[in-house]
Amino acid sequence: MQKFFEIEKSSERKARAGIITTDHGKIETPIFMPVGTVASVKTVHQRELKDDIKAQIILGNTYHLNLRPKMEIMQKAGGLHKFMNWDLPILTDSGGYQVFSLSKSRKLNEEGVKFKSHIDGSTHFISPEISMKIQREIGADIFMAFDECTPYPCDYNLAKKSMEMTHRWLKRCIDFNETNKEIYGHKQHFFPIVQGSTYSDLRKISAEKISESDQVGNAIGGLSVGEPEEEMYRITDEVTDILPIEKPRYLMGVGTPWNILESIGLGIDMMDCVMPTRNARNAMLFTWNGVMNMKNKKWESDFSPLDEFGTSYVDRDYSKAYVRHLFVAKEYLSKQIASIHNLAFYLDLVKVAREHIIKGDFYEWKDAIIPNLKNRL
Amino acid sequence: MQKFFEIEKSSERKARAGIITTDHGKIETPIFMPVGTVASVKTVHQRELKDDIKAQIILGNTYHLNLRPKMEIMQKAGGLHKFMNWDLPILTDSGGYQVFSLSKSRKLNEEGVKFKSHIDGSTHFISPEISMKIQREIGADIFMAFDECTPYPCDYNLAKKSMEMTHRWLKRCIDFNETNKEIYGHKQHFFPIVQGSTYSDLRKISAEKISESDQVGNAIGGLSVGEPEEEMYRITDEVTDILPIEKPRYLMGVGTPWNILESIGLGIDMMDCVMPTRNARNAMLFTWNGVMNMKNKKWESDFSPLDEFGTSYVDRDYSKAYVRHLFVAKEYLSKQIASIHNLAFYLDLVKVAREHIIKGDFYEWKDAIIPNLKNRL
Repeated sequence: MQKFFEIEKSSERKARAGIITTDHGKIETPIFMPVGTVASVKTVHQRELKDDIKAQIILGNTYHLNLRPKMEIMQKAGGLHKFMNWDLPILTDSGGYQVFSLSKSRKLNEEGVKFKSHIDGSTHFISPEISMKIQREIGADIFMAFDECTPYPCDYNLAKKSMEMTHRWLKRCIDFNETNKEIYGHKQHFFPIVQGSTYSDLRKISAEKISESDQVGNAIGGLSVGEPEEEMYRITDEVTDILPIEKPRYLMGVGTPWNILESIGLGIDMMDCVMPTRNARNAMLFTWNGVMNMKNKKWESDFSPLDEFGTSYVDRDYSKAYVRHLFVAKEYLSKQIASIHNLAFYLDLVKVAREHIIKGDFYEWKDAIIPNLKNRL
Repeated sequence: MQKFFEIEKSSERKARAGIITTDHGKIETPIFMPVGTVASVKTVHQRELKDDIKAQIILGNTYHLNLRPKMEIMQKAGGLHKFMNWDLPILTDSGGYQVFSLSKSRKLNEEGVKFKSHIDGSTHFISPEISMKIQREIGADIFMAFDECTPYPCDYNLAKKSMEMTHRWLKRCIDFNETNKEIYGHKQHFFPIVQGSTYSDLRKISAEKISESDQVGNAIGGLSVGEPEEEMYRITDEVTDILPIEKPRYLMGVGTPWNILESIGLGIDMMDCVMPTRNARNAMLFTWNGVMNMKNKKWESDFSPLDEFGTSYVDRDYSKAYVRHLFVAKEYLSKQIASIHNLAFYLDLVKVAREHIIKGDFYEWKDAIIPNLKNRL
């Protein structure tokens, strides 16, 4: 049987190129995963995700999907792959993060979280077991532990208490999964999540605890929540020193193009973020030469291709002046073009990073390219 | 040299199948023209317009394009085809209709119209000559006379006065065009517009006047502005009785799928309307079997293809339940899918109508199919 994760090439330091194998196909790591919140990567057709963006895996959000279309519909559809017509791998988060960041009010105890929907204020309850049940019903190829994600900054004692509960919740997730198996005939792979805020000792405890649980992959949560970038890198570095080398590591909710490369350099294999799509809708484009604000007047008469180094058709088909015009005129197509561009760029970024890992010059390349990525064009 | 318009097959009554030839390609008539208001058919990529919707010609709006991106940019780009990267035919309206329907306030006299932009309230002036100049700068393959479009209902004397001014304005348009030629190297074809509200005697005078001007094609304006459908059909019928048979006839701003077929039956060759895109964005889909409101709960668990008789990939790739979910969740993709579907349906509708004209059974087919089109699904 094909192993879930195989390392193809390790660098002299922590970065590595690998392959994840799921029943919906292989994923070449390091990988960026576009976020398809409510069963749609905003403004992007599934065909474009596959053919133009070259996405290998996308995310679904348990919190959102549970509210709409609801699990009754999801199950009747035969799971999220069929519902949205996406036959490549999917990963779902557990709903934990959104419950804490989106819902109108929440009441947390050991059992789980009671919260009010951000859509209609209706009351819901989610627990480790309920999150697992929903994620079985969604049927993602990779699914996540139900955790509490602490904000930044977070008091030490609160962070410790929260982390300990996340660990107890992990046990309940694993217990549930052992007796409640896949319902759609394809294998689902479970990842636990390291917490512990920005405290090194807590992160160490959590990383060891999560490693001991011996699942097929591991995730780092509670970062990219407002802490300085250096803190994020420091914690990531400390945690990947502990997480088993032979299993994929997923850094949740990260980040900018330079965050992506630095994280890969710290031994991360998987990342996701709404930034490429959300910022696209606000006219911010990421490119190999830096960041462009497409509303800027400087593009008004620039009829050169949107991005001469871009990999997707929008980069060749549309000019900077045209896309600038669409943003100024508030045309839908502006958001569509920018979203395809940014996602295709992120996928190109991790593809090229992978090539440099295999070639053996990842760190030199990364340090040389990051100043370009941060340019303001 | 290829004639601008050739009739391939005439039915026993007024419907006919023809071919319009422009420097950007041929158009098989009868044809529906998607509206690309501000240099974008809303929510639709140019690639989708060509490959999935099979659009043969699209519209641009002079009023909108003149305000954004403005003609300085348009000229630097080398015209609208290059600006938006659309190499098939384009038609522009004259701006007359929008000045009267959109601008915040306007002051009309024989010379032209002073109006305030609907965007920023800035003051602008448009006259027959200025409209022609702008349309030369846009560079559409077919461009329209600057007319006054009367509302419905319209007092007889006002309608008469307005029509007479439209006729005087036509003379000024033609004079301008004779001394101010194309600027981008491809031929532009000018269409005058019949006005006269719902008054048969005025429409007769106008149709004769417009025919006498002896341009390569003719248009009927001032319909589909709120009058009963029977009035629209009656006037169209009376006007097409007068307009020369050997030139294409364009009915402006029409309409529903059944309006399209009835108009073709009355000898119309070209139509445009925002309905397929605007209604799409509000969840209304047109199909061969009738009209669907995609927000309707009845589609909640209907996992069958969006439209089994649809010609575009969205009809096969997405289910009714999925599209319903996207509309309920207010996802951008809902509007994108519905717009592609509706436009592809409109293009399929006129394609099949054309086949029946050539086959010789258009009228029987039309009368049989219209009740289906009007169904509420």
